[in-house]
Amino acid sequence: MGKQKKGLILLSGGQDSTTCLAWALQNFEEIEAICFDYGQRHSIELECAAKIAKFTKIPLTTIKLDLFPKENALTNSEIAIEHTDKLPTTFVPGRNLVFLNAAAIHAYSKGITDIITGVCQTDYSGYPDCRDEFIKSAEQTLSLAMDRQFKIHTPLLWLTKAETVKMMSELNALQLYEFTHTCYNGTRPACGTCPSCELRLKGFKEAGIKDLITYK
Amino acid sequence: MGKQKKGLILLSGGQDSTTCLAWALQNFEEIEAICFDYGQRHSIELECAAKIAKFTKIPLTTIKLDLFPKENALTNSEIAIEHTDKLPTTFVPGRNLVFLNAAAIHAYSKGITDIITGVCQTDYSGYPDCRDEFIKSAEQTLSLAMDRQFKIHTPLLWLTKAETVKMMSELNALQLYEFTHTCYNGTRPACGTCPSCELRLKGFKEAGIKDLITYK
Repeated sequence: MGKQKKGLILLSGGQDSTTCLAWALQNFEEIEAICFDYGQRHSIELECAAKIAKFTKIPLTTIKLDLFPKENALTNSEIAIEHTDKLPTTFVPGRNLVFLNAAAIHAYSKGITDIITGVCQTDYSGYPDCRDEFIKSAEQTLSLAMDRQFKIHTPLLWLTKAETVKMMSELNALQLYEFTHTCYNGTRPACGTCPSCELRLKGFKEAGIKDLITYK
Repeated sequence: MGKQKKGLILLSGGQDSTTCLAWALQNFEEIEAICFDYGQRHSIELECAAKIAKFTKIPLTTIKLDLFPKENALTNSEIAIEHTDKLPTTFVPGRNLVFLNAAAIHAYSKGITDIITGVCQTDYSGYPDCRDEFIKSAEQTLSLAMDRQFKIHTPLLWLTKAETVKMMSELNALQLYEFTHTCYNGTRPACGTCPSCELRLKGFKEAGIKDLITYK
């Protein structure tokens, strides 16, 4: 891919979107970011997104959303985080399409057609809206909705977490991981035991690279 | 179509969605409605939606959205309403997908898979998100996003405004039109001259049926 003009990245403040940001900074001439305050129990990630945007000197827009019923473990801290069944309790129905739609609305307004997101099918934990099939369909629907050809970039879609860490190393951007937040429980130091922490720790271990955040 | 169990209707308080409601009440055993407060200049339609829901005894959920830049005539009353170009100034980019997505999230939570909307391609005024192609794509994307097979019903998609009025007459529900709001300028009596009023007046005239609302 040649260097693109301008892109909008969905920056959660987590490991994956921050890796995508490092990728985007190398592949686009200009990047801006968008993040979402949707009542997540780990809202600390919003502070992380702000720090990362500041450090990389990119504009960040925060969108407040009051759309998700408190019926899942990510928007209701009284529901236990369980990834044992096929569909984890942390699944927030409709979330990724809301995010992509809000990003596309912002992009339309700014004359941007390239949107970057860190969704990953390889370790998608059973979330249906992290699959390639969904992303392709969303790209088409958004383009039809606004009569503008959007392109959704998913640089991590087929990578394992270890490969994501290695990509970040090759991009010489590992230091950005210091600002990232992954733990679903929203604690600093991270809990180290929730499914999200486990996945992150496994990725670093397999990549043979040291994680820069601290764990309990 | 046999009578379905339960459906969720996007009720704006306007003529089309109210006609869809009359249709849905005959085709579903149980109906509930959802409407959106998105900063529209004709927010009076929300009161109409509430009156219509009350009159027809269906539950109504209102969702507040703060997602649309004030760059169009529907969310910024300082922008003139113009339908001369291919894309009217009243186009709110991304709006219908946001509505359908929010409706699908609500439907998911309530165990509903049938969603009814009054979009119309026949007199779609150049809005890309009122086309059949968009609706079919959105149906697929929403189904993939939540791994649940949604069905989006569009009973008015290929009707002219006159045919919509005739449908309402055949459904013996013309009296519901008294509560509806159509005027983009948000005035009561309606202005009678905005593109929305013009379309409504033309429809009634062609159908040979008297409109129940008053005009200036």
